[in-house]
Amino acid sequence: MIIQFKKPLDQEILTDILASLKQAHHHGVLVENHLVVFDTDTFDFTERQKSAIARLESKQPRYVLSSRAFKPNDTIVKTPHNQIGGHNLTLMAGPCSVENEEMIHRVAAAVKAAGASVLRGGAFKPRTSPYDFQGLGVEGLTYLREAADENGLDVITEVMSVEEIDAVGQYTDIFQIGARNMQNYELLKAVGRTHQPVALKRGLSATIDELLNAAEYIASQGNFNIMLVERGIRSFDGTYTRNVLDVGAVPVLHQLTHFPVIIDPSHATGHADLVTPLAAAGVAAGAQGLLVEVHENPAQALSDAAQQLTPAQFAKLATRAQKIHELDGAIAE
Amino acid sequence: MIIQFKKPLDQEILTDILASLKQAHHHGVLVENHLVVFDTDTFDFTERQKSAIARLESKQPRYVLSSRAFKPNDTIVKTPHNQIGGHNLTLMAGPCSVENEEMIHRVAAAVKAAGASVLRGGAFKPRTSPYDFQGLGVEGLTYLREAADENGLDVITEVMSVEEIDAVGQYTDIFQIGARNMQNYELLKAVGRTHQPVALKRGLSATIDELLNAAEYIASQGNFNIMLVERGIRSFDGTYTRNVLDVGAVPVLHQLTHFPVIIDPSHATGHADLVTPLAAAGVAAGAQGLLVEVHENPAQALSDAAQQLTPAQFAKLATRAQKIHELDGAIAE
Amino acid sequence: MIIQFKKPLDQEILTDILASLKQAHHHGVLVENHLVVFDTDTFDFTERQKSAIARLESKQPRYVLSSRAFKPNDTIVKTPHNQIGGHNLTLMAGPCSVENEEMIHRVAAAVKAAGASVLRGGAFKPRTSPYDFQGLGVEGLTYLREAADENGLDVITEVMSVEEIDAVGQYTDIFQIGARNMQNYELLKAVGRTHQPVALKRGLSATIDELLNAAEYIASQGNFNIMLVERGIRSFDGTYTRNVLDVGAVPVLHQLTHFPVIIDPSHATGHADLVTPLAAAGVAAGAQGLLVEVHENPAQALSDAAQQLTPAQFAKLATRAQKIHELDGAIAE
Amino acid sequence: MIIQFKKPLDQEILTDILASLKQAHHHGVLVENHLVVFDTDTFDFTERQKSAIARLESKQPRYVLSSRAFKPNDTIVKTPHNQIGGHNLTLMAGPCSVENEEMIHRVAAAVKAAGASVLRGGAFKPRTSPYDFQGLGVEGLTYLREAADENGLDVITEVMSVEEIDAVGQYTDIFQIGARNMQNYELLKAVGRTHQPVALKRGLSATIDELLNAAEYIASQGNFNIMLVERGIRSFDGTYTRNVLDVGAVPVLHQLTHFPVIIDPSHATGHADLVTPLAAAGVAAGAQGLLVEVHENPAQALSDAAQQLTPAQFAKLATRAQKIHELDGAIAE
Repeated sequence: MIIQFKKPLDQEILTDILASLKQAHHHGVLVENHLVVFDTDTFDFTERQKSAIARLESKQPRYVLSSRAFKPNDTIVKTPHNQIGGHNLTLMAGPCSVENEEMIHRVAAAVKAAGASVLRGGAFKPRTSPYDFQGLGVEGLTYLREAADENGLDVITEVMSVEEIDAVGQYTDIFQIGARNMQNYELLKAVGRTHQPVALKRGLSATIDELLNAAEYIASQGNFNIMLVERGIRSFDGTYTRNVLDVGAVPVLHQLTHFPVIIDPSHATGHADLVTPLAAAGVAAGAQGLLVEVHENPAQALSDAAQQLTPAQFAKLATRAQKIHELDGAIAE
Repeated sequence: MIIQFKKPLDQEILTDILASLKQAHHHGVLVENHLVVFDTDTFDFTERQKSAIARLESKQPRYVLSSRAFKPNDTIVKTPHNQIGGHNLTLMAGPCSVENEEMIHRVAAAVKAAGASVLRGGAFKPRTSPYDFQGLGVEGLTYLREAADENGLDVITEVMSVEEIDAVGQYTDIFQIGARNMQNYELLKAVGRTHQPVALKRGLSATIDELLNAAEYIASQGNFNIMLVERGIRSFDGTYTRNVLDVGAVPVLHQLTHFPVIIDPSHATGHADLVTPLAAAGVAAGAQGLLVEVHENPAQALSDAAQQLTPAQFAKLATRAQKIHELDGAIAE
Repeated sequence: MIIQFKKPLDQEILTDILASLKQAHHHGVLVENHLVVFDTDTFDFTERQKSAIARLESKQPRYVLSSRAFKPNDTIVKTPHNQIGGHNLTLMAGPCSVENEEMIHRVAAAVKAAGASVLRGGAFKPRTSPYDFQGLGVEGLTYLREAADENGLDVITEVMSVEEIDAVGQYTDIFQIGARNMQNYELLKAVGRTHQPVALKRGLSATIDELLNAAEYIASQGNFNIMLVERGIRSFDGTYTRNVLDVGAVPVLHQLTHFPVIIDPSHATGHADLVTPLAAAGVAAGAQGLLVEVHENPAQALSDAAQQLTPAQFAKLATRAQKIHELDGAIAE
Repeated sequence: MIIQFKKPLDQEILTDILASLKQAHHHGVLVENHLVVFDTDTFDFTERQKSAIARLESKQPRYVLSSRAFKPNDTIVKTPHNQIGGHNLTLMAGPCSVENEEMIHRVAAAVKAAGASVLRGGAFKPRTSPYDFQGLGVEGLTYLREAADENGLDVITEVMSVEEIDAVGQYTDIFQIGARNMQNYELLKAVGRTHQPVALKRGLSATIDELLNAAEYIASQGNFNIMLVERGIRSFDGTYTRNVLDVGAVPVLHQLTHFPVIIDPSHATGHADLVTPLAAAGVAAGAQGLLVEVHENPAQALSDAAQQLTPAQFAKLATRAQKIHELDGAIAE
């Protein structure tokens, strides 16, 4: 049950309601002028209590703060250079890994020219094998930040553990939580406490409900600056695409949650020549952003060689994505 | 190994090549001016033999006739009112089941007005339970044919068994093979022998290679009038969508095969309000056709009530799909 | 609603009940002394009507005839040499394909010696590609029958289409419906009309409910001689096993249905060295039969070379399976 | 390439070999008397160098330390009361969550009496929703330790983050890494540095190779006290079982790795009445341990109510598992 109070909030009645609920052994959480009661869908309020209530939602999903029932309007995540969500389309691009200082500066300039407003790049890399290249660490972060600043871009980069949050947070505008860590609850709560923007990637076989409950771990710490990233799910057929882009997740998430939805066509496909059609499909389905891997010379990349676009390919993708986005009705209304 | 001969075909050299291969115990099939040899990738041809050969593809998939290696150009499937494939976008629409004579006439007029050029409708219905409505049978086919003719539309309808092919073939322009029958090989061979257009739906958990090998069963009988239908695959999460539309299959299939690719967003999602975003996504990814369930009064439909669009909703879908299709580069080039 | 009548059935009251239901527009099917009403869970019977009713099950699954609610006791499928189901363990073994007359006689003798009582072997083979070996057809069936008769074994072999049923039915004791045809409803109804035993294989991504609804298509034609075969389901990981044996399906099916449950560890794994552990697992979970591929010289088999056991390997498997079966509680009670 | 040196190790030749490899820009890691070279399968050793080499494996998986190629014999993980692995069967049992002091003492006594030698119980609980019961924390750990000590049992309990390792490590004999954290690489490396036994649960949609690469993160820190837990994988059908127990993973893992393999039938099924058949199946397939949820009064459990066994049910399970394990050939040989 979500109780939305009239503004200004009548503290006296609120105290009275909290006491009544407590007496009935109900458990609630107050977020601004909303009181979420988890263990009941009804309550017998007095007339005086009712007078302070603006709206009462009896049914709620478990991911209450993340739900449209709690917040009907789109959340807009604000960063220094962007307003992500709503009717905006935000292009985020850059290499899988920051490999050295020069490359990230050149890529940053190229993706900026093509229309990107966020620079991506991995400095701490989660790799399936401990013997794969694990990223440049803090050194990579400094290069990334400088390249972004030089080009007027925001930074998005992955944080993999609670211990790294402070270090990474000094350099990035958006924390990326990777698919493998989608249910690393300690990490989710820790980025929740920072109140910085977070891009939460859907786990490889996470359901929509699990994704929203993971977002709820962040939101439950008071951080509503969340965007959700669909990056392909695991299926029975990995012959031609690394994963299956669940493009249907875009309109489904728009119905269930107020957070922006981003598509990562690079990890969804794993093949550069499939990235543009899937980016287009994602935008056509209503995605509010794209997260694309771009590398000067994909064949020589230290990671994800097969799926990175050249800057020229990204420029074409960006043009096509913008055109589709500008058609009426790109975002479900 | 695919041997493409120069035109006109030199019969004498051909006979000589066939004899050489036979002597070496190789097994080949001649299709027009192509000779497909299944059991070797190389052969030591004489200079005279080489003089008749235009092109030699040493690597081939098992689904050779269906492959781009065999036929680099797009196949255009011709029906009385359509040329399906290539740069065309064909809209196919109509009810899940033909329920009575009047309804199919009204729906036919409505989808025609909205831009459809093929009328769909089930008369023989494959249903999970034997106690569900199984369709009107031949009676339904006559209504479907009349409604299509009255409105200048082609007909597409499902055929479920070898015995029904003759009866269904008299009424339909395009045989639909349903997902459950994708590997019903006797049925595939039988529709292959008819040489009528066939829309082959991907099985719920069929890989891309299995889909193309199923198409090959049809093509191996000399019928190249095939279109492939992606209609959603089964995943681990059926909470909000019936299946997951594998939109990546569209560009993958364009690379591997010359047959047209159609998207069925109705079965992919199972919910009317998700059909339009997924139709748009499919077209953005390069689909050459859409197969959409439309019903006058979806709530009262005898089958698939939740996923059918009203004629008005379909009209909006058609407009949006056409706009995306008309943007440059909708079909991967 | 399932109405079980007292025996002997009072025809007068039955007629009265049928009339009452018809008047209320309910739809029912009479099977022996059970009346299944599909569209309601309750009915207001008169006292006289109640006097003829022995038991009334208000809740029923859609696969009513296949359910424990309809028939609480295990079905025992009787063949010339076997009673399949209940507390019996039936071993079925033989080559993937009947390749020639001599081999099937030798294999039949070998599997008989090891404890098998049913001979398997494919004569009509469903193959992913039209260019793969498709089986010896009727010639293979005659060899199979003779080899079985010579060794006192039943025959199980696949039937792939309605047209082949008569021919195959003359030679086999058990029709096998392959995984690809699990929802080929015309085929299911046709084997249902024969009243011969049928082994129905679960489709690669069929749910338990879909499997039972497919069995219902057979049962709805009056054929209750059905056994269900779990043969591995498709998953996201095909690196080391062809499929994933869903061993949990065994106790689940024992709860839901009265039909015997058979495990096919050969197709589940696809690798000979994994067949015995999975056969053991299946029996430990309560399977009432095993269907195992055995070949004299697996490396030279015309199909499924990797997964067939030698006769000696099968003899070890049979011994181990029997030992586990003989422990108390192998079948869930 | 894995180079196994003769014992005693000739330090002089070793130094020489390391220098030769370094000169050729190869990268290697020395583990006891094994040198693993990651980037080449061959090397041109001098005769003198060869004289110190006992065995050379040219092919190796990426998870080299975890592989049979590296260590052909079974690893036995030693704890105060157990030797886990090899031909032993270790029963681990206890409640999903430690709920209070009394209950864990009573359950410990009951599972000990039934044959268990390890007590499980969650104190830090990973829960899908932030609003679910999250465990008693350190207080729960003290109860768990005392209950185990009183009954001569080892303790296994989950650790969810790097920060908790010290605290949890003081109370537990075996760290459990949950399925959601299987690719939380910082956590894996941190438990790797402790050298305490670790039970690594397979992720819900982790491939076998991903599981072994995750184990490699632990082993790469010098900790070989690892056991692998198959606990069910996510499939397309969650109607009757929470997950699908991949029983084939047991013999597959025995071929690929030397680490013990444990089955968790409670999370695999999610239903108490399916736990015993699946435990039996797992042991029949060669599992060297079982991890089972047991609660005094499952219906009132604070988490996982549906899947916990009563002590009496667990006693039956234990008896059946032991009987199957004692049959010849329970472990693949």
